[in-house]
Amino acid sequence: MNGKIEIEKISQIYLNKMSKKTKVGVIQLKITKNKEFNLKNSISKIKEAALKGAKIICMPELFLTEYFCKVENHSYFKIAEKVPGSTSDIFCKLAKELNIILIISLFEKKLSGIYYNTCITINNNGKIISKYRKMHIPDDPGYYEKFYFAPGDLGFKNVKTKFGDIGTLICWDQWFPEAARLTALKGSEIIFYPTAIGWHPKEKKKYGKSQLDSWITIQRSHAIANGVFVVAINRVGKEKKGKREIEFWGNSFVIDPNGNIISKLKSNKEGILVCDINLKKVESARQHWPFLRDRRIDAYKGLIKNQNND
Amino acid sequence: MNGKIEIEKISQIYLNKMSKKTKVGVIQLKITKNKEFNLKNSISKIKEAALKGAKIICMPELFLTEYFCKVENHSYFKIAEKVPGSTSDIFCKLAKELNIILIISLFEKKLSGIYYNTCITINNNGKIISKYRKMHIPDDPGYYEKFYFAPGDLGFKNVKTKFGDIGTLICWDQWFPEAARLTALKGSEIIFYPTAIGWHPKEKKKYGKSQLDSWITIQRSHAIANGVFVVAINRVGKEKKGKREIEFWGNSFVIDPNGNIISKLKSNKEGILVCDINLKKVESARQHWPFLRDRRIDAYKGLIKNQNND
Repeated sequence: MNGKIEIEKISQIYLNKMSKKTKVGVIQLKITKNKEFNLKNSISKIKEAALKGAKIICMPELFLTEYFCKVENHSYFKIAEKVPGSTSDIFCKLAKELNIILIISLFEKKLSGIYYNTCITINNNGKIISKYRKMHIPDDPGYYEKFYFAPGDLGFKNVKTKFGDIGTLICWDQWFPEAARLTALKGSEIIFYPTAIGWHPKEKKKYGKSQLDSWITIQRSHAIANGVFVVAINRVGKEKKGKREIEFWGNSFVIDPNGNIISKLKSNKEGILVCDINLKKVESARQHWPFLRDRRIDAYKGLIKNQNND
Repeated sequence: MNGKIEIEKISQIYLNKMSKKTKVGVIQLKITKNKEFNLKNSISKIKEAALKGAKIICMPELFLTEYFCKVENHSYFKIAEKVPGSTSDIFCKLAKELNIILIISLFEKKLSGIYYNTCITINNNGKIISKYRKMHIPDDPGYYEKFYFAPGDLGFKNVKTKFGDIGTLICWDQWFPEAARLTALKGSEIIFYPTAIGWHPKEKKKYGKSQLDSWITIQRSHAIANGVFVVAINRVGKEKKGKREIEFWGNSFVIDPNGNIISKLKSNKEGILVCDINLKKVESARQHWPFLRDRRIDAYKGLIKNQNND
């Protein structure tokens, strides 16, 4: 390595440390029955976000197909694919081309009978630098994920990137303070939640507002409790299979380490959100709300049990 | 026991199980320099809440004195008292007289050099049925609690009462998802947070709204994550010692197990809140948002450490 490159490299590291500014990109998608279209639409939107300066871009959960977990149907296992595989190859190439960190969600086939809801982080050299498998798997009317996915076996993850320390969790994980805490304790400054969540049309009128509000609230609480940025990336639009319909509620957002929503998309249309964030706010939030300092690790053993009646 | 009393007792138990309805009472106080006045004011307000039908009444944190932790001053240790002791005796008598469950917060002297921020639950027979010592102790400008209180040594608690299973946590504990989770896993259907929190007058304009909002949000998140009722009981008014002033922000509230605020007091005056709650909502919330079912207790060991870098 020659002297000039070395000096440039050092100054870049120094400048990055001084500012700790980065830009996250959130791609909120309407997903169709046509996988080819979804792929092209995704690539085009990722390019658009990169053009707007986004350095870390994250896609919604299982963004290449309609949300098949609406029903239990064996035929959907054929969608699953190897990771790394042909789909991840496409996005690795793209991340390198655009010089971005790219987070994508895939239906992973590990071997016959073992499938995961998986999320990979690709760095700006086009290399997969982290793989996370959804740890908490829902089973609720219209969200029959326990039928398709084995619970993740890789634990909670942080990965260092050129643009900050980041962790990924997936959808249902967002209801578990344990998941956010463990990811933050691994060192993450930003937690990304690729998501597929929406209303049952019959429930929307009565419970819709409260459900959406709970979803935003629980994620703001992770930012507050841990002093981290939280980014949720959801899909939009109605998807129907037989009698089962879900209206995905969008509302993808970026939350700062004090729990303030700094940017948010709407509930009913596709959109790209490119948002400046300053990772120095993590340090500042944790100094001013020093919760991590006061955790009672001597008294938390009950958390690794399901009930604590003495 | 004669047959009639036995039958009445059984029908009462049956009726309680069927309805699971109860009424909580929240006493939001302005606390003065005059301890005698504070005591009389508290008793009078407890009686008023009981008259309105409250069955479980909770007082704010350290409600008999101004919030002395604004400064570090050895002379305040003389306020500390034995628990049980003369103050708890007064409230035990009152709880029996009014046939209520009463939760009060005290500065406890265990022995010379060991003091706790303690909360006791008294049943309707006037008996102390639970003692909780604040587990998470803050130390922040104006909240110098580490100077006064040893961290609690009794762990997280639930206690069965005639009117439901209840847990108590105290103020700073409210920022820790671990505390709410452990209390809920012990069986609590309602978690009470006696509290003393407010604004630094100099910060209020710039950060006041966001701070109050974070405080409400984190507690709503405990209700959502655990499917429990959450009740916070704060003081109001400005208290000053030397240059140090705090404006306590009131806003005492009751939150249902879906995270909805069902009743709330204002930020600037004393008040009593008597609120109907139906404990059946705990079961219903946990069936519809089945988070407890999906906890990954096999993967939570990192929670009993402070950092998790591999």
